[in-house]
Amino acid sequence: MKLKGLQEYTDSAVGEGKEFEEQLRRLVSVPSLSKEENHRADLRRVQETMADIAGGVGFETWISDDEFPILVGKLQTNPNLPWLTIYNHMDVQPAEEKWEIPDPFDPVVRDGKIIGRGSTDDKGPALTTLHAIRFLRSQDLPLPNIQLIYETEEESGSSHFAGYLEKYRDRMEECESVLVSDTIFEGKHPALSYKLRGSLDLVATLEYGDKEIHSGLYGGAVRNPVNVLNRAIAAAEDDQGNVVIPGFHAGIKEMEGRELEEFQRVCSEFDVAAFRKAAARPLTSDDPAEILRRSLHQPTFEIFGYDHIHSGSDRPKSAVPCKVAVKLSVRTVAHQKPDHLREVIDVFLQAKVREYLGHDEFTLTVEGQGPLPFVVDVDNPFIEQARLACREGFGADPLFVACGGTIGALPPLQDRFGAPIVLIAQSLLEDGYHEPNESFRFDQARGGVRTMAHYLSSIAELRLKSA
Amino acid sequence: MKLKGLQEYTDSAVGEGKEFEEQLRRLVSVPSLSKEENHRADLRRVQETMADIAGGVGFETWISDDEFPILVGKLQTNPNLPWLTIYNHMDVQPAEEKWEIPDPFDPVVRDGKIIGRGSTDDKGPALTTLHAIRFLRSQDLPLPNIQLIYETEEESGSSHFAGYLEKYRDRMEECESVLVSDTIFEGKHPALSYKLRGSLDLVATLEYGDKEIHSGLYGGAVRNPVNVLNRAIAAAEDDQGNVVIPGFHAGIKEMEGRELEEFQRVCSEFDVAAFRKAAARPLTSDDPAEILRRSLHQPTFEIFGYDHIHSGSDRPKSAVPCKVAVKLSVRTVAHQKPDHLREVIDVFLQAKVREYLGHDEFTLTVEGQGPLPFVVDVDNPFIEQARLACREGFGADPLFVACGGTIGALPPLQDRFGAPIVLIAQSLLEDGYHEPNESFRFDQARGGVRTMAHYLSSIAELRLKSA
Repeated sequence: MKLKGLQEYTDSAVGEGKEFEEQLRRLVSVPSLSKEENHRADLRRVQETMADIAGGVGFETWISDDEFPILVGKLQTNPNLPWLTIYNHMDVQPAEEKWEIPDPFDPVVRDGKIIGRGSTDDKGPALTTLHAIRFLRSQDLPLPNIQLIYETEEESGSSHFAGYLEKYRDRMEECESVLVSDTIFEGKHPALSYKLRGSLDLVATLEYGDKEIHSGLYGGAVRNPVNVLNRAIAAAEDDQGNVVIPGFHAGIKEMEGRELEEFQRVCSEFDVAAFRKAAARPLTSDDPAEILRRSLHQPTFEIFGYDHIHSGSDRPKSAVPCKVAVKLSVRTVAHQKPDHLREVIDVFLQAKVREYLGHDEFTLTVEGQGPLPFVVDVDNPFIEQARLACREGFGADPLFVACGGTIGALPPLQDRFGAPIVLIAQSLLEDGYHEPNESFRFDQARGGVRTMAHYLSSIAELRLKSA
Repeated sequence: MKLKGLQEYTDSAVGEGKEFEEQLRRLVSVPSLSKEENHRADLRRVQETMADIAGGVGFETWISDDEFPILVGKLQTNPNLPWLTIYNHMDVQPAEEKWEIPDPFDPVVRDGKIIGRGSTDDKGPALTTLHAIRFLRSQDLPLPNIQLIYETEEESGSSHFAGYLEKYRDRMEECESVLVSDTIFEGKHPALSYKLRGSLDLVATLEYGDKEIHSGLYGGAVRNPVNVLNRAIAAAEDDQGNVVIPGFHAGIKEMEGRELEEFQRVCSEFDVAAFRKAAARPLTSDDPAEILRRSLHQPTFEIFGYDHIHSGSDRPKSAVPCKVAVKLSVRTVAHQKPDHLREVIDVFLQAKVREYLGHDEFTLTVEGQGPLPFVVDVDNPFIEQARLACREGFGADPLFVACGGTIGALPPLQDRFGAPIVLIAQSLLEDGYHEPNESFRFDQARGGVRTMAHYLSSIAELRLKSA
């Protein structure tokens, strides 16, 4: 199926100096950093900007009055057609690293791409879908009734999102499916993600003694809690970086059947060299299956930061502290239970610290939470249509892939709507999610508009629930 | 020997509401933080305040125009008498912890002590000696010609001090001995320190990859440098905290002869319970000899902080870093060579990181320096006079002790003047060097004035070098 006029539309609207660029500039120029409390006003501002753009496409919009405001937009063209929910997020990661442009929030167009924080994650991909809708409406082509739910806490774990879905239940329409475009191509291949890792952010805090003490007077006669906690954390891995905490891998299922077939397809297409180049460092393996297994289907255990201890380039105080916290990131995989994980990590660290100190006079806590892992059954007609849409829009069959990243909103969306969630990737690995010089390519944007137009048109009347 | 009028002098000058308190308030109220660049003006200010006080005792003073200004004061009463150099430092440790008083730089008098940062380390003890000099002059009692050399970089390792001694060589007098009062009683016993640990501040930096990368997309397929470096650091110790780096203990001499005898005397008097209470946490041993060996005669290996990695209470970015630095503190002991230590630590960490990563594509550097350890021969007549002075001033024979702390200026003073260095303690362990609620007791101050008066008077004509 070819959609008449689509090529002309993307040529005229998406590219350097065109409307898409101007709109993406408006969105990127708002530093909507959800991790930083002093940017809360920007979260509202980015939603207002997006509401203005969506309004231009015909959506009626509403923005909630919350710490992390959500935008709900509705475009009902025919009460007899089913509703589709489109999820994107308007918040972005911090951008404090060294960029090749002067200001990550003042985008620069160069080499066929727009460079700026949030350009590909996730403002650009949200915008392409709106253009697809505008195109379909301009040509009177079929499309379902569409409900936008855009949030502003994705980069901070979407911990309020489930609550917002419940709080604003009456403002939302039941829907037949959910569309998400916050994932990444698998190399040169379009990709449909069916499985994402969760993200359990833990803080392990060790405390003993009730004050700092002089490191000269006491050093050697007492154990430094930083050394002790670090030793316990180090004991959680072996030399190769495999986690050895008993119970850590409980619940993880081996791949089999269709999942294993799709995985082998991905492995056979996987470009190790390109992945290594994008990672900008040596990998733990050169074997595609091993790389993909570790980064997509296995959990991680990483140290991301510290608290209650000297940091920065100054000289540290000459004192032995009484408290230190290590911030751990565990990317969880499907069927791992966060409560269980926190428990086994806690038990492990307690035992190690007790062993090293030789006494019980310490307090060790392991606290934290984070978005759950996600998995969806790929055997449904919406995903089949997405596959065909990728072929039309990006010119190639997609791979069915797991994704190592996390979208905290997916499990709540699954719970709330009970509908298939379809994830259609528009970004490339080289676009640099969460990295300096994040960018979005105009040719990917054009492919995204085409793909989304085909997809939306093809599911205009597709129902599963009420069929 | 009793010094007539001394009791009356200390009773009238030292105590709550008396001149000593007012002067110490003036000194403590200047936040002379040498670790912090934005307090450089306060270093000058504290020296000006001290120069004003010393001027009142009769000293001619001069303050150098350096980043860490030194104060040189001279009081020559008789050209035929020898010179004595008195060393103290006017800078202090940071005071960011929670104190029981509102402002650590606005001292409070309570329970017979003055509470404030720098009260006991080292402003109070410097002041007692000036009072001893004033008393001796007021009574026309003998005292040597006196040269004050007060510095402002002690808490930051005195790295410029040797240079200043050389730069201002012509402004200084050759002397027969050096007096330092920056050490601590051994429990209830006055103490003469003959040996101090050095302090080697190292920064181990591991770097690979040239940018942060998304922890979801790559996590598991790459090794996180924070995990890797921490594992290498952890491998430097055994479960009991003993350093296992080959060559780390090279050069350290076992105690024997007089040193061993004095050590056993200290052990027999050592109050484990009081030390444990002051440490505010369990000790690595309950055996006095083991506690003292570890904290005074053995080196440490401690993690004091981090750089290039998230710190604080915010949520860390969801990215795998490419660089991390661990700040290590090694308290060195006599005869350990910093260059050798840095080298063996570097070699050890390089090998561990290479082993964990399985490749060489990383940069690991170990850099840093710090004040050298110090040891002086106790068999000299100045120390014998100091022993007698403690008996007169504090009412008890002193113990000859090693000190776990560091005074970076001692090796340069030893090199510059080639004269015996006598360290007479005035502070108590409970005074809290480097800790919150640092304080100096008026009864210790009165004992300090008495002891210093007896000492100065007794060495008025004592010569070794030119005898």
